[in-house]
Amino acid sequence: MGREEEMVVESREWVLSAYASQGLPTSEHLKLNTVTLKLDSDSIPDRHVALQLLWLSIDPYLRTTMTGHQDGLYLTQLELNQPITAFGMARVIRSKNSSYKEGDIVLNPFSPVAEYCIIPSDSLRKLDPDAGIPLPDYLSSLGLPGFSAWVGIEVVGKPKPGENVFISAAAGGVGMFAGQLAKIKGCRVVGSTGSDEKWDLGPFSIVTSGRQLESSPFHPLLDVKLLKEEFGYDDAFNYNTETDFDAALSKYFPTGIDIYFENVGGKMLEAVLNHVNTRARIPVCGMISQYNQVWSEREGVRNLLNMVGKEVRMEGFLVGSYLNRFGDFAKEMESYMKQGKISSKHKIYNGIESFLESLASMFSSSNVGKVVIQVKQEMDA
Amino acid sequence: MGREEEMVVESREWVLSAYASQGLPTSEHLKLNTVTLKLDSDSIPDRHVALQLLWLSIDPYLRTTMTGHQDGLYLTQLELNQPITAFGMARVIRSKNSSYKEGDIVLNPFSPVAEYCIIPSDSLRKLDPDAGIPLPDYLSSLGLPGFSAWVGIEVVGKPKPGENVFISAAAGGVGMFAGQLAKIKGCRVVGSTGSDEKWDLGPFSIVTSGRQLESSPFHPLLDVKLLKEEFGYDDAFNYNTETDFDAALSKYFPTGIDIYFENVGGKMLEAVLNHVNTRARIPVCGMISQYNQVWSEREGVRNLLNMVGKEVRMEGFLVGSYLNRFGDFAKEMESYMKQGKISSKHKIYNGIESFLESLASMFSSSNVGKVVIQVKQEMDA
Repeated sequence: MGREEEMVVESREWVLSAYASQGLPTSEHLKLNTVTLKLDSDSIPDRHVALQLLWLSIDPYLRTTMTGHQDGLYLTQLELNQPITAFGMARVIRSKNSSYKEGDIVLNPFSPVAEYCIIPSDSLRKLDPDAGIPLPDYLSSLGLPGFSAWVGIEVVGKPKPGENVFISAAAGGVGMFAGQLAKIKGCRVVGSTGSDEKWDLGPFSIVTSGRQLESSPFHPLLDVKLLKEEFGYDDAFNYNTETDFDAALSKYFPTGIDIYFENVGGKMLEAVLNHVNTRARIPVCGMISQYNQVWSEREGVRNLLNMVGKEVRMEGFLVGSYLNRFGDFAKEMESYMKQGKISSKHKIYNGIESFLESLASMFSSSNVGKVVIQVKQEMDA
Repeated sequence: MGREEEMVVESREWVLSAYASQGLPTSEHLKLNTVTLKLDSDSIPDRHVALQLLWLSIDPYLRTTMTGHQDGLYLTQLELNQPITAFGMARVIRSKNSSYKEGDIVLNPFSPVAEYCIIPSDSLRKLDPDAGIPLPDYLSSLGLPGFSAWVGIEVVGKPKPGENVFISAAAGGVGMFAGQLAKIKGCRVVGSTGSDEKWDLGPFSIVTSGRQLESSPFHPLLDVKLLKEEFGYDDAFNYNTETDFDAALSKYFPTGIDIYFENVGGKMLEAVLNHVNTRARIPVCGMISQYNQVWSEREGVRNLLNMVGKEVRMEGFLVGSYLNRFGDFAKEMESYMKQGKISSKHKIYNGIESFLESLASMFSSSNVGKVVIQVKQEMDA
């Protein structure tokens, strides 16, 4: 690419052909189409750029934009037969904006899930190639997952040293950073995670801070182990083997829970509310166990009254409302990364064709790390 | 009383003889005993006083101290075969503390539900007989209910003028003040309340700011009417006649709910969470619809995920944690009362023997006003 003679490119892109109100979306709802993009100067509007996608961030919220009705996260629903949009990283291959030149690497918050695109350049952010940060980190520790963890723990949760912090979905894209941030703040941190007996190897690889993980394939308890060894959690449990959540929380939190970073909802939240300490805080980032049901089919939480006696504050948040704090976050997180205090794990799917599988994998209890798609191998990445 | 020759008094007092884990407590759980108290100087310890009870405050939290297990409000359970304690107002009839003399009127936060008692004088507060405030107001607008409303609305809810505020159990002891305080802050306020078709006259009278209400007996819609006419609510609905809460909230909150003062829990909370605006606040004072079930039998709330998309903050509170603000509250509330901005309604039961009935009446949907027992008619009250 980038040579003048290549004026046309074929691009595969995912579109939503039907809403999936319940259950996991399948190939009945999501279609991979091929489109032809003209890359000649006349075909690219002013202040637009043509991009080749390198990486795509696959996040649980995407599921909630495909139901056809608004609730829960209240995100705008995708339009049918239009490309799905996600947070992406791309290389500029044509530019009609003098601020961007061919070869620049940019972040695109509203990228089509595609191999190529022509888009307005307004919302792009150019990356510094000399920053020494592995590119996928911009989609995880320094991206939406890291920022979500930071807002939830530091802004909403306000941890004090010595407090007991519980992280659910603790090995997932957001949870792994939430736990590490709470540890940095001097808390005792315990995480819950799930492993399937049959670890589905699938077409992905697990990479830690740019290094290939040695011990693949995973065994059932590996993610508990990694929570403790790689992410520094004080303790961890597998909710598929310790299925009595009340007993598990009694065991891991003998003095109660001060902060619960809520990622899963349902029965786990109910169990937590029977173990909270006075003035506990529950930042609610998401409830991934509930995304594939309509609200009236979700698990009801029966013990909210405990919030009175324990004076609990439960607070939902969307990172979009805290963008004025993104600079503070990025500065702090980069500093932790340079000090070697943050470990990142990426679950990397290869090729745009893996989108459907990568989306579904987040809702498997065996999910570990930040799910990303490497759309195109970058020479220098 | 007060004459030297009366050295012995018979006092009836309520004791808990068995815990009631579910359902309303009955005469199987609560017994009215008669005890004899010696009032001679040798029988009253130093720094103690003998009191004749005048008024008792009957509040929903009392129910949660009779279950025999801790959850919800996490209050200390009453000991079996010991007198039940409640917030009371009494007249000093003997004193072994020079700060108190016979005839003083005092508030006693930990009063036995009895006609007479001998207690330590440490936690008493003497009332100013010249303040011009009707005595029952110290148990309602200037007591725990008014303070609960103030903490919930002003400290936790933080209303802004023009916001839409929903009060459940809006004609009850706390709700009536919560709604009026929100109105004073410039909000649009709608309340929900219930009326039974058969209004149970019972052995009580309804009194407004010391005046006997003219329009007794009530008709089914009277409490909706009083919310609007006496308490100044912008609108109100009866949840027994408008049983589709979702439709009711669509009708009364076409632009959504900014603050929900939570008194009832269960299905009403669930309905509210489908009508909240971004950054809504839900101060949780109590959940009276849930007090007579063990937690696992309570109504589950299935749509907590909406708290994420709408960035809702839900916060339980106990007034005991805000006692450092009581002075601010009392000053503000007295000022509103002097300006005629606060209307109080009391549901007055007569005689200590009415305790069981007064307790049960709070859990009836027809409850209106602050429930109190007038233990003894005061000559000058």
